[in-house]
This record gives sequence, C-alpha cells and structure tokens, in this order.
Amino acid sequence: MVSERIRKSVENGSQIRAMFREGKELAAKIGAENVYDFTLGNPATPAPDAFKNAVIDLAEHEDPMLLHGYTDNEGYADVRRAVAEDLNARFGSGYEGGDIIMTVGAASALNVILKTLLNPGEEVLLCCPYFTEYKNYIANHEGVSVEVKPTVELQPDLADFEKKITAKTKAVIVNTPNNPSGAIYSDATLKGMAEILERKAKETGNRIYIISDEPYRELVYDGETNPFLPDYYAHTIIAYSFSKSLSLPGERIGYLAVGKDVEDHDMMLMGAAVALRTLGFVNAPSLIQKAVARCLKEPANVAFYDHNRRLLYEGLTKLGFTCIKPQGAFYLMVQAPGGDDAEFVQHAKKYNILLVGGKGFGAPGYVRIAYCCSPDQITRSLPAFEKLAKEYGIC
Amino acid sequence: MVSERIRKSVENGSQIRAMFREGKELAAKIGAENVYDFTLGNPATPAPDAFKNAVIDLAEHEDPMLLHGYTDNEGYADVRRAVAEDLNARFGSGYEGGDIIMTVGAASALNVILKTLLNPGEEVLLCCPYFTEYKNYIANHEGVSVEVKPTVELQPDLADFEKKITAKTKAVIVNTPNNPSGAIYSDATLKGMAEILERKAKETGNRIYIISDEPYRELVYDGETNPFLPDYYAHTIIAYSFSKSLSLPGERIGYLAVGKDVEDHDMMLMGAAVALRTLGFVNAPSLIQKAVARCLKEPANVAFYDHNRRLLYEGLTKLGFTCIKPQGAFYLMVQAPGGDDAEFVQHAKKYNILLVGGKGFGAPGYVRIAYCCSPDQITRSLPAFEKLAKEYGIC
Repeated sequence: MVSERIRKSVENGSQIRAMFREGKELAAKIGAENVYDFTLGNPATPAPDAFKNAVIDLAEHEDPMLLHGYTDNEGYADVRRAVAEDLNARFGSGYEGGDIIMTVGAASALNVILKTLLNPGEEVLLCCPYFTEYKNYIANHEGVSVEVKPTVELQPDLADFEKKITAKTKAVIVNTPNNPSGAIYSDATLKGMAEILERKAKETGNRIYIISDEPYRELVYDGETNPFLPDYYAHTIIAYSFSKSLSLPGERIGYLAVGKDVEDHDMMLMGAAVALRTLGFVNAPSLIQKAVARCLKEPANVAFYDHNRRLLYEGLTKLGFTCIKPQGAFYLMVQAPGGDDAEFVQHAKKYNILLVGGKGFGAPGYVRIAYCCSPDQITRSLPAFEKLAKEYGIC
Repeated sequence: MVSERIRKSVENGSQIRAMFREGKELAAKIGAENVYDFTLGNPATPAPDAFKNAVIDLAEHEDPMLLHGYTDNEGYADVRRAVAEDLNARFGSGYEGGDIIMTVGAASALNVILKTLLNPGEEVLLCCPYFTEYKNYIANHEGVSVEVKPTVELQPDLADFEKKITAKTKAVIVNTPNNPSGAIYSDATLKGMAEILERKAKETGNRIYIISDEPYRELVYDGETNPFLPDYYAHTIIAYSFSKSLSLPGERIGYLAVGKDVEDHDMMLMGAAVALRTLGFVNAPSLIQKAVARCLKEPANVAFYDHNRRLLYEGLTKLGFTCIKPQGAFYLMVQAPGGDDAEFVQHAKKYNILLVGGKGFGAPGYVRIAYCCSPDQITRSLPAFEKLAKEYGIC
C-alpha cells in the first residue's frame, strides 16, 4: 500500500497536470487545432540556437569523463563563477562563484532551500495568488504554509503580511513576475515588506528569509523592470530556473544564489549542498550546466509572449471578461463570471478551452490562462471564448 | 539560521564527499600522480561514443520544443517503452512502458519510491553493509532505518532479517552487486528473504516491498550473473541508474520499474509520478532521456574494472591485508588491521592514500576502496600500501 499522504495527493491530483493530459487526449481525438489548451507553463518558443550549438560543441570537444562525471554537489566551479558574474553585470550585485549552487531547476532549488531552512512545524508565508506547488514543497520538509491575502492589485496586503508573522515564521516565498497573476511586485510592496521583516528581526531576534522564486525574471512587458530583491532585503535567497528564459523546462536546470549579506551565509551554502545531495538531486545535470553557462547572455523571446498577451487581453476584454492585465510572465487571470472558478473551467471545456481554476493558487473565483502557446491558438480560441461569454450572458 | 537537522548533517558531513574534496586539494598541492584517491564511485571509463553521437544527433535533428520541453512527469512514452522492452529482452520480464518512470538518477528513484511508500514512522530494513545515503533518504520521508546484520560472507543474516521485521516494516532496500562490499546476493539469500516476506504478508496482511537499487547490475565478474529480484519476489520495485553502466553519473538519469504483480501497482505508479513532481524532480532531464534510450544495448566496460579488481585484490592480499574479494560493482572492502577503521583511514592519509571508513556503511572495522580509477593508480599505490602494512606490522 502506498502512504496515506501520497494516496491523497493522487486523489486530489495536480489540476494543471491533469488538464495537460486531458488536453493531449482531446487533441488526439479531435485534432490539436481544435483544442485550446491554456493549462501548462511550457514555453512556446524554441531554445536559442546558441544552446544547440553549445550542446554539440561540448559533446564533440569536451572530455566525456569531465562532461558526464559527478561534479561537486554545488556544480562546476567555472559555471558557478559565470552565473555570479552574469548576475553582477546585470544587477550590480557582488556574488562570487561560491555563492551560487547549480540546481535541478527552480523546483529543486526551492526544495533544497526549504530543507536547509525548516525545522519541523516552522512556517512559510505564501502571498496569494501563488504557484500551487509551493504548498507541496513546504510540506515535504515538515513546514507549514501560511497564506497572505492580496490587495485588489494582487500585491501582498502588507497589513495581513505583518499579522501572519509568528514566532515560527522562517521564510516568505516571493514570486515576481508572478505565476499565476502576471503581476510585478511594486517598489512600495517590497519596501514595505523589507521594513516589516527588519523590524520583526529586531523585535524578536529571529531572522525571516525571503526566498525569491524568479523563473519569469526576464519576461516583463511595457518597459517595466522586475525588482532585484536583494536590493530591498539583504536576507534574500534567489531560486532561478532557465526553463522559461531559455525554453528548457525539460532539462531541469537552475540555481540558488546566496549573497554575502544573507544571515548564516556560510552555513546556508554548506547546508544547501548537503540538502541537494541527500534529497537525491546530487548535482545539476552536468552537460546542461556547461551548456547554459554559454548562453547567459541570450535574450528571452519577450516580444513573442507580449504579442500573445495583447491578443488575449484585448480579445477577452472585448468579449466582456474581466481580466487582470499581466505585467510579466506568461499567465493571465480572468474572473469567473459566475464567481465559481471550478464551474467556469467545466463550462470552458465544453468549447474545448482548457483552463486551470484559481482555487489551487489561493485565488478562488479566478482562472489562469497560460498564453505560452502559438498566437494562432489564441486567435482561433476567441470564437470559442465568445460562445462561453454568451453562455454567461456577458456579451 | 539553518535548520537543526541540516546543521547536524553539515557537521557530520559526508565522509565520502569530504575525502573527495580533500583528494582534489591534495592533488593540487602535490600533483595528482602522487595522490591515491580511492574515495568516490565516479566511473573511470568514458561514456560510449554511441552516447556522444546520440546527443549530437538529437541536438541537430529533433524539434527543440520537444527535446527540451516538459515531458510527462513519468518521462517520454517512447523512452519508457524502450526501457521496458530492453528489460524484457534481458530478463524475460513483462514490463510495459507504463510500468517505467524515468528518474533523475537512482538517488531520485529511491527518494521518489520512499516518499510514495512511507507513512511517518514506518520502517525500512537496510542490510549491512549498505550505501550510506540510504539513511538520509529514509529520514527525508520521516521513515526509520533498521539495520540487518550481515553473515561472514556479507550476505544479510536471514535470522536477524526476520527478527527485525515489525508491524511498521514497509520495505527493505536490497543492493546487489553491493556498494560497499562488492558482494552479489546468493540464490539462497534471496529465496530465504522472499520466503520470509511472503510468510509475514500472510501472517499480518501487511505487504513489505523490496526496493532493489541496481546501479551496478551490469558490473559482475568471473562469469557470475546478478540475480533478477522480481523473479524471487514479485513485490520488487527496481531503482536503476545509468551512472555506472554508461559512465554518466553527472547527468542524473535512471528509472523506476514497477511490475504488474507488485501489490497496489496502479496507485504506486500514480503516486510515484506525483512524488517525482512534488519533490522537485518534475521529470528526468529530457535530452538525456532520449540519448540513453538509444544506448540501452551498449555494454558496460566490465573488463576495465575486472582488471583493476585483480590488481588491487592480489596486491593487497600479498601485502598481508585481509580483503573481501568483490564479485561485482567497483568497491573492495579491507579489514582495518587494528580493527579501527577511522584510525586506518587517518594512517593511510599519511601515505596519500584516501579511503572511506566503514562505519557510515554499517561496517565498522572495514574500509572501502573504490577501484574505479586508472590501473596505473593502483600499481603506483601499492608501495604506499606496503608502507602502511609495515606500520601495522602485517608484512
């Protein structure tokens, strides 16, 4: 018999993954061109040619013993140095190679840092709406998730944020640009958050860390820039993934960055290396480490997603839907016209539109549309959305 | 502050990894040719050319969206099918693609299946000597490790095995060929183990699973064959890694195989897919999945390791050391002449010989020598071992 908690997880399922599968089954039945699958954050632009060239060149010219052998748990020293220098060039930070740990994507980075930080029963704040897997990651390490309410602009409500801090709070996960809302956290939000965390540290002597989950860092629109969190709060640990910026989600590659000013810096890095090993990641895939290190200057295809964003936002708004205009990432949230997101997801499915309900993101009443698809899919889906709007009587 | 358990892990350290680092530092100081580093199980033969060719061909010709995109959590369907067919061809088993889950190496496979199986406080039997990380993996999922004593031939002592089974026993990890002993479990051992497990299942109604950790499956010597565990006990889950057979430890690629007869088969596979996702592995690295699927027929370089095995076993035995002759894998255990393995490791270090003490493997009084090195290193190390033998007065 499997464990009780896994049985429950299977029964509850990942809504996102279940819809992704359903979409593929439906596509096999009625043709991919007739399914409007907006469920999964799977990049819709190919990895850059530079990545392909790096893989081929490495396979052809590197010593296979070095290229495919165990690396230090933290990763190749030259790769870690390259990542640190790239961050410094872009953000004026002062990372050294030793402050970087290469990970098996951001999901690995988050599990590793949570394992490193959490004593059983300690609390992690999640700002609604949030990526649904965070709760699982926290539970893996016997932590407790605590939700912080959003403002109407989908920023964290700072009064609620402060109220939710207890003697057991160990960290807060910040995700900007945000999945699922597409919001970028404002200067005021982050200054306020940092002020509260510093004040609490002084009052209680307990340091609360920010874990900044940044897979969408490069995907920002309208000339916005995404804030660099360590500039606001020194005790910020960055969890990054190359999944979205280089379109490599299947390759599982990312990193943790722990700045010199992070409290308990040395022990944190040693602990994270141990956690990477004992959790079974061991080291980030070695060939892929070397390949991404050669692609750090490759730009993300922002124009592609921006075009989709405009098409979708304008199309849906015209049909009478209430949408939150995304500032970054490739997700758009729509209010479920009746207020019931699960029902809205079911109705949409009748028109072969696959969406994800907001409840799992801590955002009931909304659905998430992942617009990392072809622009053509968006255009073709609008008549289906129109039927859906008519069903709800909003157009 | 990092968590208490991580702080302790850092302080205790991984002896193997610490020695591996020490070896690299020593090599930088006195030259690699003067250090006899026998610490880490890092394959000493390169990955086959077929792997290189597969990587290059895939990078050149596959659609990058497919090659680097998210796969199902379980892996690519064609890769899973290829692995199943390869197992069936070699072992006469009846796996289908759906019975296979591609993982981020065996360390990931083991964490995933332990997460799938264990309720907090449930027990997992480890047969001494065992791979030191198993205890960490079990603790990650709130399980409890229970050690089973070995016989003088380093097989599990079946009387002790039966005695250690309680109402909380959920699984036993079997590792043959064994790390660190190099032993292959005998027909009698496995028949006895299966008989006990079946009897207990009848008596108590609780099914105990065998988790067969098989990274060394192909590394067997003297015409031996490694037993195929599902033939002995239907409720066996295989955890495999390509690290050793294809010399790809850095790439983190392996699989779980759950046969049709494994109790709770369907739920186990669904649960393992969920665990793979929520533990942060998400899916096995995608390009590497496709590349290993093209190399399933590549033979491991057994002759290379066999040559090393003979050199080392004969050399050390001649010097008066008491060694356990390995039947498989690439490790050899030597009795610490004074009986104190930690002391022996320290004495060896004076002669630039780097070994790992047996205590962490549940084998105090022994040291492990990983002979996955150049044969030249073994030859050059023998005079250093001679000095060590003289110090102990055994030659």
